[in-house]
Formats: sequence, C-alpha cells, structure tokens
Amino acid sequence: MTTNVTSLEQDFLDYVKKISHYNEAVGLMAWDLRTGAPSKGASQRSEVLGSLSSEIFRMSTSTEMKNFLTALRKDSEWGKLGDITKATVEECEKQLKKFENIPPAEYKEYVILTSKAEKAWESAKNQGDFKSFQPYLEKIVAYNRKYVEWVGYEGNKYNALLDDYEPGLTVDVIDEVFGKLKEALVPLVKEVTEAADQPETSFLFKDFPAGKQEALSREILENMQYDFDAGRLDTTVHPFAIGLNPGDVRVTTKYDEKDFRTAVFGTIHEGGHALYEQNVDEKYVGTPLCTGTSMGIHESQSLFWENFVGRHHSFWEKYYDLLKKYSEGQFDEIDLETFYRGINVAGPSLIRIEADEMTYSLHIIVRYELEKALINGELEVQDLPQAWNDKMEEMLGVRPSHDGEGVLQDVHWPSGAFGYFPSYALGYVYAAQLKQAMLRDLPNYDSLLQQGELAPIKEWFTEHVHQFGKSKKPLDILHDSTGEGVNPNHLISYLRDKYRKVYRLD
Amino acid sequence: MTTNVTSLEQDFLDYVKKISHYNEAVGLMAWDLRTGAPSKGASQRSEVLGSLSSEIFRMSTSTEMKNFLTALRKDSEWGKLGDITKATVEECEKQLKKFENIPPAEYKEYVILTSKAEKAWESAKNQGDFKSFQPYLEKIVAYNRKYVEWVGYEGNKYNALLDDYEPGLTVDVIDEVFGKLKEALVPLVKEVTEAADQPETSFLFKDFPAGKQEALSREILENMQYDFDAGRLDTTVHPFAIGLNPGDVRVTTKYDEKDFRTAVFGTIHEGGHALYEQNVDEKYVGTPLCTGTSMGIHESQSLFWENFVGRHHSFWEKYYDLLKKYSEGQFDEIDLETFYRGINVAGPSLIRIEADEMTYSLHIIVRYELEKALINGELEVQDLPQAWNDKMEEMLGVRPSHDGEGVLQDVHWPSGAFGYFPSYALGYVYAAQLKQAMLRDLPNYDSLLQQGELAPIKEWFTEHVHQFGKSKKPLDILHDSTGEGVNPNHLISYLRDKYRKVYRLD
Repeated sequence: MTTNVTSLEQDFLDYVKKISHYNEAVGLMAWDLRTGAPSKGASQRSEVLGSLSSEIFRMSTSTEMKNFLTALRKDSEWGKLGDITKATVEECEKQLKKFENIPPAEYKEYVILTSKAEKAWESAKNQGDFKSFQPYLEKIVAYNRKYVEWVGYEGNKYNALLDDYEPGLTVDVIDEVFGKLKEALVPLVKEVTEAADQPETSFLFKDFPAGKQEALSREILENMQYDFDAGRLDTTVHPFAIGLNPGDVRVTTKYDEKDFRTAVFGTIHEGGHALYEQNVDEKYVGTPLCTGTSMGIHESQSLFWENFVGRHHSFWEKYYDLLKKYSEGQFDEIDLETFYRGINVAGPSLIRIEADEMTYSLHIIVRYELEKALINGELEVQDLPQAWNDKMEEMLGVRPSHDGEGVLQDVHWPSGAFGYFPSYALGYVYAAQLKQAMLRDLPNYDSLLQQGELAPIKEWFTEHVHQFGKSKKPLDILHDSTGEGVNPNHLISYLRDKYRKVYRLD
Repeated sequence: MTTNVTSLEQDFLDYVKKISHYNEAVGLMAWDLRTGAPSKGASQRSEVLGSLSSEIFRMSTSTEMKNFLTALRKDSEWGKLGDITKATVEECEKQLKKFENIPPAEYKEYVILTSKAEKAWESAKNQGDFKSFQPYLEKIVAYNRKYVEWVGYEGNKYNALLDDYEPGLTVDVIDEVFGKLKEALVPLVKEVTEAADQPETSFLFKDFPAGKQEALSREILENMQYDFDAGRLDTTVHPFAIGLNPGDVRVTTKYDEKDFRTAVFGTIHEGGHALYEQNVDEKYVGTPLCTGTSMGIHESQSLFWENFVGRHHSFWEKYYDLLKKYSEGQFDEIDLETFYRGINVAGPSLIRIEADEMTYSLHIIVRYELEKALINGELEVQDLPQAWNDKMEEMLGVRPSHDGEGVLQDVHWPSGAFGYFPSYALGYVYAAQLKQAMLRDLPNYDSLLQQGELAPIKEWFTEHVHQFGKSKKPLDILHDSTGEGVNPNHLISYLRDKYRKVYRLD
C-alpha cells in the first residue's frame, strides 16, 4: 500500500486513466455497432472509431508517454512506486515498444478499414459471396504482413501476432501442443463417428420461442453469479462479451428458435468471459491491467463454463427441470440420459461456433495453419477459400458447399484479429488443467453442480484467475493454479473419457 | 461549390471533424446511460464522459483553434472559403468567445457532476425526496451563476443562458411573449375548466400491453417518414431523441400500460425531433452545423407533430382504426368524436410532459420564472420546492403533494440545462406560425391527414427547416418561412378556437 504517491506517479496514472477512458468509449461504440446501431450511421461511426483509436494510439506512443516511462524507471523513482504503477509501466512499455514502429496514418486507416470490413463481411457471409469481401481481406492481410515486420519477431513471423493474444507462447510450443491434439483427436473423431450407438438428436430441433430462451438465458446467467446490475444481455449476429469496466460487462447472444443450444451454450460461454471481467479487482480500474490477462486465459473461462459446467451430466441433473419449464413440451418424452447424450452429440461439422468439444480444437488448428501460411507469405487471399475447403476435408472430412459456411464464417479476420484463433484451443487446454486443480479444492465438484451451487466455482476462479486482471501473466496464472506449464494431456484424457462414455465405446 | 480547398481550410475542417467525432461518442454514451447502461458502471461512465467532454472543450478553445480562426479571417483567405467553412468559422468563434472564459477544471468537474446528478435525481424523483438531490442542484446552480459571469451578458443575467438555446432571444422579448400567453391562457383555462360539457375520458385508462404500444409506435413513426435504417426506438425513464449523425438518430419512449397516450404522443413528439436531425443536409456532417439550429426550432418540430398532426381531428379520421387494431378492444364502444374529445381533454395538472396543449405553456412559464430568479440570486435552491408549489398554485391552481410530482419531475435541472425551458413555449409559438405558413403551400392539409399522407408535411419541413441544420439562425428560419418575427397570436387563436370547440363553448 503506497500512500505517498509522487506527483510524477500521479500524473502518469492520470495519463493512463485518460487512455482507459478512450478505450471505454471505443468499446461502447463497438458494442453498439454489433447490437443495434442503424445501418446508415455505420460508415460515419467507423470514422469516429478511427479518430478515437488513433488518439489512443497517439497517447500510447507520445513523447509524453516516453518521458513518463523514462522518468519512472530511474532508480530514484522506481523504488517508490506502488505495485500497480510498476505493472502499468511494464504494460505501457510493452505497448510502446510494439507500436512505436507502426506508422500512425496506416494504423488509423486500418482501424477504419476493419470497421467497414465487418459490415461488408456481414452481407458477404449471408450471401456466401467471398469475392465481395476479398478486397477488404487482402488489405487486412497486407497490413498484418507489414505489422509483423514493424513490431519484429523472433523465429516465425507469426510469433509477433501470438504475442498480442497469448504473450509467452510461440509457434514452436503451439505446433507441439496442437500436434499432440491432432494425433489424439483425429482417431477419436473417427471412432466416435463410426460408433454403433449414436445419440438421438431429433428432439433438439423443436420450436423454442426466442422470448423463452431469453428468460432461460437470464436465469442461468444469474445462477452463474453474473451480475445484471453490472451488465446486460442483448442479441447480435456473432455473440461476444465485452467489459467496458468491471461495473459494465455486457453479454450478447442469439436465439435460434429451432435449436435452443445456440443460445443456452452460447450464453453460458459468453457469461464465462463476462464473469472474468466483472471480477477483476476494482483497484485496477483506469489502468491497462483492468481486463483479462490473455485471450487464452479468457477462453479458458468461457470454455470451462460452457463445457465443464454446461455440458456436464451433473449440471443437467439440476437444470433439466428448468429447461423443461421454459420450453414448450419438447422434452416431455425425453429422459435425462437421452437428453445428455443428445446435447453431447459430436462429430465432424462445418461451423466452428456450433462445433462440439471433441472437434472444436480441430476447427482451430485449420485456422491456425491458414493464418500462419498467410502471414508467412505461403498463401494468398485469393487462394484462401480453396485452401480452407481442402483443409477442412483433410482434418474433419467435411467440405463447405459455399463460403458462408466456410471461410467467411468468423468475425475474426474481418475485424483484423489475426493471431487470435490459437487462443481458443489453448483455452481448452488451460480449462482442462484448471479443472484438475479445482478438484483439489472442490472435491465435491459434481455434487455442487447437482445442487445448482455454482457460486463456489465462480469464487475459485475469482481467487485464482479473475481478480488479478492483467497484472499477472498467463503462464504465471496457469503455473500458480495448476503447478504446470501448458499441458494438453488433461484435455485429451477428458475428451477420451467423456466421449467414449457418451458413445458407449467401452 | 468550392473545389479548390486551401490546405489551411482543409486542416481546419479536419480539426472540427475530430471535434464532431468526439461529440458523437459523447452522444452515444449519453444515450446508453439513459436507455440501459448497468447501474454499477454509471459512475465510471461519468468519468469517461468527463474526459471526452473536456477534450472537446480543450479543442474548441485551444491555441490551435484560435490560430485557425485568426488565419481564416484574413482578407486574403476569407474570400476563398466555401460557405460551409464560413458558417463553421462563425460557429466556432461563437463557442470560443463563450468558452474561453470558463476555467477548464471547473468545466470538467461540472460535466462529471451533472452525469452523477442525473443518476441521483432518478432515485430522488422516485422517492419524492428533494433533500437527497438538493446538494447536487446547489452545485449546479452555483456553477450556472458563475457561468453567466464568465461568458457575460447584456441586460438580464439570464440572457447568457438563453443564448445557448435560443440565440437572438432575450428576457425582454420572452417576458412580452410569455406575458401575452399568460394573459390569454389563464382565462381560457378557467373557462374550459368550468365548461359544462366535459369530455369523457374513462376509456383512456384501460390495459394496453407495452408490446402492442411499441408496434403501434413503430408504425406511426414509419408513417411520419422516420427512417428506421437511420435510427432505432428504445425505452427510457424520460423520453428524448438524439442525433448522433443524420444516419443515426435515435428515439426513446416509455410505455404506460394504463394510458396509451404517454407512448403514442410521446413517440410522435420525439419523432418530430428525429425527423429534423435525420434530414439535415449530409454536406454538414463533420461540422458543428450538422444539427438543429436551436432548441426552440427543434421544439417547433416535435410539438407540431405531436399536436398539429397527432392531436388533430383529421389525423384520427385515418388513424383511429390503426389504434383500434393494436388495442385490446378498449375503443370498441367509443365513437371518433368521443375519442377525439377524450384525447384533447385539457385543464390544470401537475406533470409538464403529460400536460395538454392549452396549459403546457403555463408549465413552462413557471419554470422560466423560477430559473430567472435562481440565476439572478433572487431565489435559493433550498427554497425552490416551496416556490415551485406556490407558483403552480398561482398559475394553474394545483399544488403537488410531493416533490416527485413537483420540482423533481424534469431531467433538465439535473442535467444542467438551465435556459432550456423557454424553448418549449417558444417552440409552440413557432409551430403555430409555421402551420399558418404551411397552409399557403398545402391548403389541403386537413385532407392529407385524413388520408394518412404525412410525407408532404415532412417534406415541407425538410425544405424550410431541416435541411439547413445550424447554418441558418432560428429567427431567419422563422422569418424566411413565415414572413414574421416571434408572434404568439397564432398560437393564442389556435388554442382558443380548438378548445372552445372541444369544450362546446360556442
């Protein structure tokens, strides 16, 4: 606890607070664009986003920022700083080092480009029309190729992008982890696909009104300890959660009236992200530390809730009745066992966000390999749809019939988030590791789910993950909670055990 | 059409465009705070608003801005400027002259204060608890008393505030116009109150589900030519419309399930504001001219649609069937004449936004006289509830039973908008003048309403009012459309004629 804050330290904290304010404004505008902003205002809104983002960029790389960092690093100052200030200095140094080599005009243009590209992508996706989106993606890839040169890298060019989402990880590590996953999962997928006793699923696809799905989603979020006084739930095309500050963390979802799973599991997933952002310690507000530490750790939270809670047998021993209450009789004839097997149906499919746990990582590996090739100049955008389709066939044995269900399905590339995808599979790996660690403190995990007592799970995560925000590095969080580095074996065992049971292979 | 824009002119236009971008971000955050932002994020959001508003303030008063204005005013430059640039220079000069004397720290503090005050006011209003809100209002009034000194005034101190909302008007003119209104309306109210044949109203207060009111509101807005691709409709506590840019103009409303009039007339009212903002010429985007020219002209639009359209007999000859379609049988036994008289019931009441056309201006005059006294130091905030109640009794013959239906009812003072209220009554006066002018071009006005042909009305306003944005001064718009200055006689004749008929006094 530093009570004597020097005026230099205070000026620096005020300066970074202003940056955090601009980030909150940008976050709200992004949320608004994706939830209900009128189409005719979108182009002007892109300009506004461009202005604010370039101001954030300017402030993060300004002479003033450089002077702050130099002055605070002096021996005479450093020892007097509070821990939060020290961690903030480190984060700002990292940003600065990264950004000072990016030409500001190109950065601003890129922000405007990606905002417009998202709108163009929506209609391209709906029409399965890659050609109309191709010019946007070419510019985005061209920027990212320049970006890795600007910011620098060791080893593979792609490492420069990984560092934005999963600092500490490299292509070498990921190639090894993903290699093990592929080696284990491709045969498991084959075994499951060929299993004689396939789950019944026809009961899943019945009319379930959107309004009732929304009420159900809200009740589950509340049970997960999501705080509606510090958030809200809206609909969107491609669901996401966004933390503006710990008191304002928004979840979005979508309702498919012919498949309740989209909303139920989607909302639980985004709720997992939201719990992370709502429970970062308030002391980090106004600093760049006030958010999740990496995309991978973030995904460990959402995937944990979606699968280790939401698709767990014990969870439905409690919540099946609630689901029945909101539905219109579609489960009347379906016993719990049939239901459980039905929602855990697994096998090759085209759409990542609708993929099951077992194949999900393979969808990610497809994207990772394509991104790596694009960034290293081994693949061009015009050849991407073909490469996508070929890789899907090779890895999962299925081929899209049009690009809307293929290469155009995700928002990540339109929004410029190259390097993000690996975090999803890493998040799975982390989640399985965290589950093992949690069992040491909560050996009654299954019976907590059976009773619908979800608070201890949320509290365990707040203690080991949420509270630290970005003040603790991803691999430190992993190591301090689990005693291990990145280890895919827990996920592999979990998936083998679960799916061999679901498919009655033993 | 200036095709050769000098680089000085271009730099200046880029600079003001950036200010307009920040204003759009502030506008979106304000909309969000009032429509659905979670309560726990509100305090942090106030800080963000404070940061952005003070940046707008800084940019509007910076040395850079001063240098632009000086350089552009040089004889060698001025002649080369486009008309939009010239009008933008004039608007910026006005802002600068006003703001350069306001201490930036006090301004920033005030923005944060009013944002917090709005939240405090909501609960104070709900609980009728003036004491909990008093400390906020004292600070707001104290700031406004300092403000009028900072920015300067001629004659009455209150003129400094009027200039923010209704440039060109002064206390002298308003005292005269409001004096005539009072002289005419107080006896008319008395006559109507004592009329033997009072309208039947019990049919108004039946169950009308919010969802159906919303569908009806949307249909009416569409008929008014409100463009939903450039806007959206949401619910809020105190309805408003806000223009972020002409492609994004949002309407808010609220649904009282026991009184459909709140939503129907409220939505039409805000829709009138929104049509103005949606139809400002696109060429003004990115300049301070891209909005309504004054609050009074803005209110002329909303009040025109609400009353001269929405409460007109001919309008309901067309739309009564639509209302019946969405309602749950509440009008089955009610003929058009009874309905028309019912929705035009008039008489003394407590709540301004629910007041009828006849008494509305008197509600405004109460507020105007209190504001004038507060700013001139003739009244203190602690004495305001008493003064409010006394004046309501004197002017309208009614006295609030608690402050929630009295002095706390409006958002204007919590949000710091002193000087705004007179615009409402001036808007009425202008609306009646514009109606007279419109009849020269649309002599078939009544039959247009009877046919539900509302487009020509919107188009007349776009031609005479909307398109110019702030490039034309309020009194110039009034004069060019009507050939007159401010003249309350048209409103007085209209109200006398209408209410003597509704109350069958002839």
